[in-house]
Amino acid sequence: MTTPRGILGIDPGLRATGWGVLAIAPDGAAQLAWGVVRPSADSLAERLLQIHQGIVQVIERHHPVAVAVERPFVRHNVRTAVALGQAEAAAMMAASLAGLEVAEYAPRAIREAVAGDGAADKQAVAAALVARLQLGELKASSDAADALAVAYCHALMTEAQTLAVR
Amino acid sequence: MTTPRGILGIDPGLRATGWGVLAIAPDGAAQLAWGVVRPSADSLAERLLQIHQGIVQVIERHHPVAVAVERPFVRHNVRTAVALGQAEAAAMMAASLAGLEVAEYAPRAIREAVAGDGAADKQAVAAALVARLQLGELKASSDAADALAVAYCHALMTEAQTLAVR
Repeated sequence: MTTPRGILGIDPGLRATGWGVLAIAPDGAAQLAWGVVRPSADSLAERLLQIHQGIVQVIERHHPVAVAVERPFVRHNVRTAVALGQAEAAAMMAASLAGLEVAEYAPRAIREAVAGDGAADKQAVAAALVARLQLGELKASSDAADALAVAYCHALMTEAQTLAVR
Repeated sequence: MTTPRGILGIDPGLRATGWGVLAIAPDGAAQLAWGVVRPSADSLAERLLQIHQGIVQVIERHHPVAVAVERPFVRHNVRTAVALGQAEAAAMMAASLAGLEVAEYAPRAIREAVAGDGAADKQAVAAALVARLQLGELKASSDAADALAVAYCHALMTEAQTLAVR
């Protein structure tokens, strides 16, 4: 599936990095693509490379005009936060190597923007996404839905300008 | 300065990423090269790219046979640990893209291996490096000296086999 040029949202993780591309056509219809990069390697260095290469492929296929990434939640324990930061770095570098600007959003800011509640749970955020984009339903996995929420958050923050199909 | 093929040690940081290449000739003489990558960009994504590209250049110039990286110290505060992990990821990916294995060592393990004391301070570690490698003196900056300590730690851990000039 190829979407019009839209916003690539990324929910980084060393076990699963969700991605979602969101574009809104001039008639307001949302077009989505999503997936999850699941590193299979044992070593950290190789896993980072697999995340990086996975996002490079997504960018090559979907040509996003902007990239938004979920920032590691600093109230996690330190090891988890470090791992999320490493996965984020691997994904971010795919975007910056492609010459794309990368915006970062804290998890709370994403939930606030999409669901109107910084403390909303994953289900509530996904439900808000479905309702606000008039999707009917969203079959994306949890990681990919989180990534789409990041993309939608960026769309709201940039006043939907970059969302227009070009 | 081009060293014989040796071990590249990296001390990652978003403000300064130290690197040091250590090779030991068959007669036991150590040969060193070192430097510091100092990202100048404002955005995190660009800084990571600058660290990455700096280490790519070091690898192209010095052709290390192995790479060793200092792992983020998890007793740092979470934000600092995340930043170190991100810088580490950017550096690591330069090594794995070049097909090199990357070893990770905790700061305490490096001090223990080099100075015989896991609680040794930076000066003591640098002094141990000078003494054990019979350097006379070491003019490297603090970040680069830390990176050389990582390389030497890896040399000790791998029983100096990969240190031999090839």
